[in-house]
Amino acid sequence: MSLSMYEASIPVFLHTLSSLRSILQKGAAHAETKKFDSAVLVSSRLAPDMFPLSRQVQIASDAAKGAAARLTGTEPPKFEDTEKTIDELIARIDKTVDYLKSFSAAQFEGAAERVVNLKTPRGELTFNGLNFLRHWALPNFFFHVTTTYNLLRHNGVEIGKADYLGRP
Amino acid sequence: MSLSMYEASIPVFLHTLSSLRSILQKGAAHAETKKFDSAVLVSSRLAPDMFPLSRQVQIASDAAKGAAARLTGTEPPKFEDTEKTIDELIARIDKTVDYLKSFSAAQFEGAAERVVNLKTPRGELTFNGLNFLRHWALPNFFFHVTTTYNLLRHNGVEIGKADYLGRP
Repeated sequence: MSLSMYEASIPVFLHTLSSLRSILQKGAAHAETKKFDSAVLVSSRLAPDMFPLSRQVQIASDAAKGAAARLTGTEPPKFEDTEKTIDELIARIDKTVDYLKSFSAAQFEGAAERVVNLKTPRGELTFNGLNFLRHWALPNFFFHVTTTYNLLRHNGVEIGKADYLGRP
Repeated sequence: MSLSMYEASIPVFLHTLSSLRSILQKGAAHAETKKFDSAVLVSSRLAPDMFPLSRQVQIASDAAKGAAARLTGTEPPKFEDTEKTIDELIARIDKTVDYLKSFSAAQFEGAAERVVNLKTPRGELTFNGLNFLRHWALPNFFFHVTTTYNLLRHNGVEIGKADYLGRP
């Protein structure tokens, strides 16, 4: 009837980070087949004033690790945002996955009611943990994974929604 | 400590459908200012073999109403997928919102354990309600809302992530 805040967050991030890893690998394979430098994909953008693919992946990572940290009242590890290649982005995803796997369900006790303060470009926002997760962290995470997918797809990488949704 | 399947689904869809409505309105306003037919946006695609914006909105609507129906063991209303204008797409969102609002939390009792069978392009998939929601319905819903956002953004509509994330 109900699910824990742990169940509503950590497995969701892990599932979709695994898909993100797999579509990036398909991007690298595509570049190899077509004999172009995959760094072109890493710096690609959907609009001149949107973030490039590298930043999309970094923010997806940050959204996931930031959510786990905030919901448990801990500090997330800081990653340096220096990734320039698909391999480095995949390593970033793997580090994020390791971090997420370090959490136990018990650490999420009381997470739905925890007060979360966020500094954002539009000022400081305050949520309870439940609203932070469902109206901020998850939408933000999926936004950046989907935008990565769209960037690859827009650039001719043969991926389909099954790659994004993964295995049930 | 825990959230109900209702709380993990209906308010999430409602919150982000409201954002989707608002970014589509900004798309229509942009077309008016720039004096082009907003139908150009409605039929825009990020790749020749990706769905156009109209279909992205229709599938976001279907993902939301389909999830509510499947999690409660009911049948979703069938919408005809005939929308050709931004106004019609907004009306589709409004119909979806009305439908989602018709659900009560009590209808979601037992939803996490409910068996959900889905016919997909890769065969029939079986989930429990919890995995259906977190690994299929929500990712799929956010995918199509984000792709709509990316299509508008790619075509010069001045929207930012605050429009997508909405108010907490």
